[in-house]
Amino acid sequence: MSLLNLESTELAELSQKVRAEYEELKAKNLKLDLTRGKPSAEQLDFADELLALPGQGNYRTASGEDVRNYGNLKGIEDIRAIWAELLGVSVDNIFAGDSSSLNIMFDLVSWSYLFGNNDSERPWKDEEKVKWICPVPGYDRHFTITETLGFDMVTVPMLEDGPDINAIEELVKDPQVKGMWTVPVFGNPTGISFSEEVCDRLAAMETAAADFRIIWDNAYAVHTLTDEFPVIHDVVGKAAAAGNPNRFWVLTSTSKITHAGGGVSFFASSADNLAWYSKIAGVRGIGPNKVNQLAHAKYFHDAEGVKAVMRKHAGSLAPKFDAVLNTLEERLGQYEVARWTKPTGGYFISLDVIDGTANRVWELARDAGIKLTEAGSSFPLHQDPNDRNIRLAPSLPPLEEVTEAMDGVATCVLLAAIEKLEGK
Amino acid sequence: MSLLNLESTELAELSQKVRAEYEELKAKNLKLDLTRGKPSAEQLDFADELLALPGQGNYRTASGEDVRNYGNLKGIEDIRAIWAELLGVSVDNIFAGDSSSLNIMFDLVSWSYLFGNNDSERPWKDEEKVKWICPVPGYDRHFTITETLGFDMVTVPMLEDGPDINAIEELVKDPQVKGMWTVPVFGNPTGISFSEEVCDRLAAMETAAADFRIIWDNAYAVHTLTDEFPVIHDVVGKAAAAGNPNRFWVLTSTSKITHAGGGVSFFASSADNLAWYSKIAGVRGIGPNKVNQLAHAKYFHDAEGVKAVMRKHAGSLAPKFDAVLNTLEERLGQYEVARWTKPTGGYFISLDVIDGTANRVWELARDAGIKLTEAGSSFPLHQDPNDRNIRLAPSLPPLEEVTEAMDGVATCVLLAAIEKLEGK
Repeated sequence: MSLLNLESTELAELSQKVRAEYEELKAKNLKLDLTRGKPSAEQLDFADELLALPGQGNYRTASGEDVRNYGNLKGIEDIRAIWAELLGVSVDNIFAGDSSSLNIMFDLVSWSYLFGNNDSERPWKDEEKVKWICPVPGYDRHFTITETLGFDMVTVPMLEDGPDINAIEELVKDPQVKGMWTVPVFGNPTGISFSEEVCDRLAAMETAAADFRIIWDNAYAVHTLTDEFPVIHDVVGKAAAAGNPNRFWVLTSTSKITHAGGGVSFFASSADNLAWYSKIAGVRGIGPNKVNQLAHAKYFHDAEGVKAVMRKHAGSLAPKFDAVLNTLEERLGQYEVARWTKPTGGYFISLDVIDGTANRVWELARDAGIKLTEAGSSFPLHQDPNDRNIRLAPSLPPLEEVTEAMDGVATCVLLAAIEKLEGK
Repeated sequence: MSLLNLESTELAELSQKVRAEYEELKAKNLKLDLTRGKPSAEQLDFADELLALPGQGNYRTASGEDVRNYGNLKGIEDIRAIWAELLGVSVDNIFAGDSSSLNIMFDLVSWSYLFGNNDSERPWKDEEKVKWICPVPGYDRHFTITETLGFDMVTVPMLEDGPDINAIEELVKDPQVKGMWTVPVFGNPTGISFSEEVCDRLAAMETAAADFRIIWDNAYAVHTLTDEFPVIHDVVGKAAAAGNPNRFWVLTSTSKITHAGGGVSFFASSADNLAWYSKIAGVRGIGPNKVNQLAHAKYFHDAEGVKAVMRKHAGSLAPKFDAVLNTLEERLGQYEVARWTKPTGGYFISLDVIDGTANRVWELARDAGIKLTEAGSSFPLHQDPNDRNIRLAPSLPPLEEVTEAMDGVATCVLLAAIEKLEGK
């Protein structure tokens, strides 16, 4: 019973019904928020113990370093070793920083612009133009960084197994193309993970720019919604094997594992890339908050400890994702007015509605007291050329609110589609 | 008995005696380090309680904000209010950041270079030349930032009441002069505090560049060695009153109060300056580590709590400073081969030896197992035009080591002076 195939009387009937539902929805005076990928209070409580760590008298690393004093730009090995294991890289190839990996990404890109990176002929600021590959839909905060630096953002579509690798292999023949954003596992907002083939081809492809870099923002590397953890491809190793050792800047953090914005970030890369980063980071400051790093190391103990925490998160998040997917299926499945991703990890579901109606859905939801991420926000400059995509973030509200909000969103999607069909 | 007035036989006698002393010193095989302004283990122990804060179940600010989640670029008011009081600024005019104020300084200068600041006609990178005023001797890490950005560093001498304000008032008539480094209270390395007159004139002076900025690195604002705390001049207020509201970027941190590199930094400035900073900092990241900020607020309670901690630090540091000053006076006072500052706060003593011998003193000390900060390091590009200055940092070693090291240093100063007089 696709909406498109309805007889006009059937459409009129449905229209009346959906309009009535929308009026009921508005009458509820809801105040619901599905905008950002924030952990819920229940999830934050998992790390309660961390609030009292490292604990009085505990300030030495396993190697005897006093974390309370200055020094050690790389961060302490106690926590670096855990993430080296999780990411499948050597402990020598990973730094532990302050709370935010986004901070490090901004520095990497802006320092390449300002000074050039270790493979640059000149600072990117002195290039005629800098172009940057942006798989869409993608992470809004990534795009804002390259927007702020004035780069030309070239989009490629996200497919089932990652970004369109054929298109990327063509684009990188242009020497002005200096880099690319990715969220390779449980991506924001699609939840898609890159296949090994895509990883291999990204590692091996020839790029015209020697200083081309892929920002491998593995923010959701261990953020499963099931009993299984995703395979983490060692792209640093793959790229080295393919003769492109400096291709990847790999980032992740504990933001959605312990305290959002108060955790530990990680930066893994080749020795040369880390040396280049250190040279400037060592001018910017002396080193990261090692007390917080030791607290985290004591909280997790080891890589298995991280996975144990992530299973708790999955237990809290999976029912919310189920609620979204079930509501979408029940309310919209039959009408063929929307498609959505069905992630097995991460923080988001990507919802595509009928072309030209995403903004209207957002508006209708807003007027009914349901805050959605602004339509278009998963695209560079917030411009979705098809006005089609909406990012759903079900983590923060309690389960019953997620269900209620999604039921409302379904009504809005349907109403916007009907309005369009009615030529309104 | 100035060394310069000695008869040649007297000098020969002294020379023999000092050379013998130096051989004895070397025979001790010392391993002492006076290089960096690091707190000692005894000082770090003062904050032991902080290692278990904020404590399980404690994650809400006074206003009810959950510090474990994302958000709040300004930092939490609980800790901002304490430093607003200590610095004499409005709580609306101060941000609390991550651990390092040096990080913020780097960002302020490099973002002005990259984007221009809120009073710039164009980014500083598009200026023909950028000049920067560097009072000398000064803080090496400051100079390294402006060196890395390729600025022309113009030096002015530190006088008894601050940097040579007459010279500065002349220099800022040049529109290429975009800013200036300062450590206004218990400066690094002189220990000198700027007089109110110098503060007033810096606030009021006319500058050719509208986007001229003074980095007011008030790292030692509460770091007294006595019972008295220094007067903190509200330069943000003074500059506003003088019609130059955006002149000062004020920085400080808890690095030498709680955990070095693991504390909280602060940035105080005009509303316009903070808005400009926020615009870019909000692209770079989401917000600071608020859990650590809450831990600090709980540790201090209030501004008086900060002062109570600083009295403990003074109790630990003052005897070390006394040891340095007494040894210098006893061993060198009579010979007129050196001058040194006598700070009542901060972390350093600035030692001027006979022109042309600072490097030699450093060498002699190194060969005797005493590590000093490299001669020249308190000057831009590490070049002391008179080869005269040595920065002494007595905080880290235990008291007995400080005394032993300084006795050795005195021998080296004397030997280098004698060598010079002997024309060697």
